Amino acid sequence: MTHALVEAGAQVVVVDRMVDGHGGDRRNLVGLDVDLLECDIGDPAVADGLADVDVIFNVAGQVSHTASMRDPIRDLQLNALSHAAFLETVRRVNPGARVVHTSTRQVYGRAKGERVDETQHAAPVDVNGVAKWAGEQLHLVYHQAYGIASTCLRLTNVYGPRQRLTSDELGFLPVFFRRALTGDAIQLFGDGSQRRDVLHVDDVVSALFAATDPGVAGEVLNVGGPRDHTLVEIARLITSLAGSGNAPVVVPWPQEHRAIDIGSFHTDGSKIEAALGWSASIDLEQGVGSTLAFYRERPWYLSST
Amino acid sequence: MTHALVEAGAQVVVVDRMVDGHGGDRRNLVGLDVDLLECDIGDPAVADGLADVDVIFNVAGQVSHTASMRDPIRDLQLNALSHAAFLETVRRVNPGARVVHTSTRQVYGRAKGERVDETQHAAPVDVNGVAKWAGEQLHLVYHQAYGIASTCLRLTNVYGPRQRLTSDELGFLPVFFRRALTGDAIQLFGDGSQRRDVLHVDDVVSALFAATDPGVAGEVLNVGGPRDHTLVEIARLITSLAGSGNAPVVVPWPQEHRAIDIGSFHTDGSKIEAALGWSASIDLEQGVGSTLAFYRERPWYLSST
Repeated sequence: MTHALVEAGAQVVVVDRMVDGHGGDRRNLVGLDVDLLECDIGDPAVADGLADVDVIFNVAGQVSHTASMRDPIRDLQLNALSHAAFLETVRRVNPGARVVHTSTRQVYGRAKGERVDETQHAAPVDVNGVAKWAGEQLHLVYHQAYGIASTCLRLTNVYGPRQRLTSDELGFLPVFFRRALTGDAIQLFGDGSQRRDVLHVDDVVSALFAATDPGVAGEVLNVGGPRDHTLVEIARLITSLAGSGNAPVVVPWPQEHRAIDIGSFHTDGSKIEAALGWSASIDLEQGVGSTLAFYRERPWYLSST
Repeated sequence: MTHALVEAGAQVVVVDRMVDGHGGDRRNLVGLDVDLLECDIGDPAVADGLADVDVIFNVAGQVSHTASMRDPIRDLQLNALSHAAFLETVRRVNPGARVVHTSTRQVYGRAKGERVDETQHAAPVDVNGVAKWAGEQLHLVYHQAYGIASTCLRLTNVYGPRQRLTSDELGFLPVFFRRALTGDAIQLFGDGSQRRDVLHVDDVVSALFAATDPGVAGEVLNVGGPRDHTLVEIARLITSLAGSGNAPVVVPWPQEHRAIDIGSFHTDGSKIEAALGWSASIDLEQGVGSTLAFYRERPWYLSST
């Protein structure tokens, strides 16, 4: 997103606490003319960076489901409390800014039908889903009570360039890419028949930009991928395009994953398509191919901590 | 609840942080043979009190909507983070205990129809509603992931004996009672035409006891009053039964209340009635009369801090 903003001529302030094991990495900003404030979004120091901006993309958060179960307090702090403090800062220094917040399809928990649209109840199965819902709803409360023009996007699983590959806790996609690139077999929990619609980061960026439309202030919008696939299909495609030769293997469910697994999930993106004309445009084959090419040219991602 | 439990022969450990301005008051326990642990439910010291109990009534929380907007972080800490820490303690020391948690109809926000049942989406209008929803959903996550037998009750506005009367921030009912008992006119924001179903504390206690039924583990249940009334009706009835002579007066909406007002709300209690045969039995006239009699005999409630 920062790369796309700079390319479009925007002046950008990046706020990142660079939490260990999370996605933040200074090397992702090398060569970009941006300011970096290295602090939590809930830190009052953020006020300096926020005061004069037109648009705030609030994409801060902890995304690991298993980590949220091992340390619920930390997840609530990073996904809810920090956002409450951040919104207080916005209200104080720049209440007219446009705010787009990224939430997650994890707030829905298990799918109740074939496709999940925004009318399905939030019923999270892990602490991360609870905390992310709280974070998004705080944005809506500040919209209703104080007129802060916030929009929340519920993203499905994201992959693509500049994702941290070395953690096993930032979703299955970076793990799949890392193992394919290092020649290790991708491990599938259970039988790998669960289905997911996955989303290339460039589609996330275009959704974030589209969501600055004032017509969707106060709204929650699903952001899904172009279609759904089984995890086996995704693993095979990544393996095959990586040319690693090691076929995916099925392994028993680790208990900490099984306890919070949601099974198959397919986002219904009708609402954002109707409101903003946005839909995901990067299909899996194209997205996986360009992602593998990106990482092959930057092998440090495979050992980055 | 503690009085009813002791009367029924239960051995009771009370955990209360006695937060300034909240409902906790040591004098409510005078004459009862109970242990009091004076700490936050998220404090690990709670483990001593929890280890051997059969049932845990988790009624801890901060209930003020306006306070939640003035200090969002504190509300999230008291209604969500403390409960996450508490559930971790339960999981560690007594995972077989039955847990009943009290949530609030505030999680729904504004009513979408004449009566609000559990199928209406949670869409809170203030930080308190967000934080209470997070607290209840954490209980459901611990039910699904770890088998902790939790049930969450969404209570409407509660009144009755032993409520703190001296705060203006614990709902409108204690304020109405205090003003009627001190001879001050009850103030109604706007025109007082908003409707609410209100609930006597003895009905809350019977709902809490009914909800220990194992058949409703993992469920969220509304707990509403016997019928709905306008705030004008409630104010007039309290004034008339108190014999204070000062008629209720209409005042302009204070901005901090107006920003988060939900208008009329009438709980649909069909689910708990079908599941447990429970419905509220104390009508307003009877409940107000006995509540006024209780406070008249204990005038210190009118000056308690």
